[in-house]
Amino acid sequence: MTGDPDADATPDATPDAGTEQSAREEELIERVVMSFDACQSPRLRELMVALTRHVHGFIRETRLTQTEWGTAIDFLTRAGSITDDKRQEFILLSDVLGASMQTIAVNNEAYEHATESTVRGPFFVEGSPEIPLGGDMSFGAAGQPCWVEGTVIDTDGRPVADAHVEMWEADEDGLYDVQYADGRTSARAHLRTDENGAYRFWGITPTPYPIPNDGPVGELLRAVGRSPYRASHLHFLVRATGYRELVTHIFVAGDDLLGKDSVFGVKDSLVKEFVEQRAGTPTPDGRVVDGTWSRTRFDIVLAPAGA
Amino acid sequence: MTGDPDADATPDATPDAGTEQSAREEELIERVVMSFDACQSPRLRELMVALTRHVHGFIRETRLTQTEWGTAIDFLTRAGSITDDKRQEFILLSDVLGASMQTIAVNNEAYEHATESTVRGPFFVEGSPEIPLGGDMSFGAAGQPCWVEGTVIDTDGRPVADAHVEMWEADEDGLYDVQYADGRTSARAHLRTDENGAYRFWGITPTPYPIPNDGPVGELLRAVGRSPYRASHLHFLVRATGYRELVTHIFVAGDDLLGKDSVFGVKDSLVKEFVEQRAGTPTPDGRVVDGTWSRTRFDIVLAPAGA
Repeated sequence: MTGDPDADATPDATPDAGTEQSAREEELIERVVMSFDACQSPRLRELMVALTRHVHGFIRETRLTQTEWGTAIDFLTRAGSITDDKRQEFILLSDVLGASMQTIAVNNEAYEHATESTVRGPFFVEGSPEIPLGGDMSFGAAGQPCWVEGTVIDTDGRPVADAHVEMWEADEDGLYDVQYADGRTSARAHLRTDENGAYRFWGITPTPYPIPNDGPVGELLRAVGRSPYRASHLHFLVRATGYRELVTHIFVAGDDLLGKDSVFGVKDSLVKEFVEQRAGTPTPDGRVVDGTWSRTRFDIVLAPAGA
Repeated sequence: MTGDPDADATPDATPDAGTEQSAREEELIERVVMSFDACQSPRLRELMVALTRHVHGFIRETRLTQTEWGTAIDFLTRAGSITDDKRQEFILLSDVLGASMQTIAVNNEAYEHATESTVRGPFFVEGSPEIPLGGDMSFGAAGQPCWVEGTVIDTDGRPVADAHVEMWEADEDGLYDVQYADGRTSARAHLRTDENGAYRFWGITPTPYPIPNDGPVGELLRAVGRSPYRASHLHFLVRATGYRELVTHIFVAGDDLLGKDSVFGVKDSLVKEFVEQRAGTPTPDGRVVDGTWSRTRFDIVLAPAGA
């Protein structure tokens, strides 16, 4: 117990429990930890022991009440109930806690100045159409045209020729093609870099959209005063033999949502200038654009495989 | 990195990540923590911050792989899918991690020599039949007759008269009455202590039974080599004005399962001798029992309300 009688009005709520009480709580943890002693897989045992220590640490530090425990059970139950083959509330929960992003961080360790990773998100699908260099990946998706160009190099500065680059993004209504009712493909394509590692394509200027927020995760975000919106972004996935696969986004400099992306995907190094061009400004490839357009540059540095 | 090159064959798997890597991981945690700054409820904020730190701590310490993260998402999804108004897989998960028991521990702090609490379990229902002192709470449930007696006192040793004592237990097939198809009530009753705080009743000798193990929690127990069985026990709930409500069990001394109760409900102070009596041994109240019976004693000490 603390010496300050005003430190906490509820004696049961203090994390500084008495010695006998602490001994009981710690003994319980050790009993649970030992229950995994017979586990044949050392890795599963390691995971269960770490999970046990963190779950019990959380309950002890917060002096979780039985009502709060019940609320947590109810939250998970409702998350389970809304989840189906199209809606995944547990991934959303992982996303809004930054757990998805942290998992990506520990599995894509910093390597020199290699481009940073971010969340893959639920909207990537294999089998996108291939476009030539300078082609249009929007396939009619609504949005302001955007010219994107850059190079793919390795950490020694050597160009990575023939790298496979996937790009996908939401339209200006915040929808990915897989969310359309008619099953058409748009705002999704791949291309291959040239012999200098260069690439270029037309897409659309990214705009913000909310993650699904009509379930328990949405309720949680409202209860804590957080926005469900993702900062505007354009997805990339880059594969090249001998290099670590890169899954990342680029974000739009100046976007109000950069500091409050609902899934914590933003990294400073991934924020790029998307420079808006007035109507009539000549395009890099001579394409005639009806109205304004934007352009950006994203130079990609790949880490070696196994790094 | 450790100095020992054999310490871990997979560089990505070391918890001792490089400085730049650690900085990235820690920065992410602080961003998630700050996202709760606008939360109007200080308690909700405290819970979310603690949850964030533990979830991220778990991922960082274990260097959780993306495959393992996917397995966890799948586990929760399947737990959600099997849960309905009769089956609660999330409570089972909490139980087998000892989280339910830890929540009870922090909400029922040790108070002098007051009787310890344990899990309530899913089978308590209000509205049990009242029996007189010495009555039979089994109501025909299959099992060996068991005479239970004791007193309810406070921590100063004063008897607690007219305390409301609820008792409930599984039959010898491992089923509680609420699990019967016909809806009958048995092995469940309440009584009131006499002016000396004494109570006594006939029940049945507790026998072990498994928690539901045909879902993902059962799979987990098998994967880690743990038994789904609960140690044999008899439930008590004691209510008396001016005292903290006590929810507890008594366990059977010598039960092989005492050290491996699947929900960690066993406490040494709650293990009692159930002494088996040969057929024909006279009973305390003159009842004629056909065959063997057992007897035990459970003296209950209540903590004051608000302790």
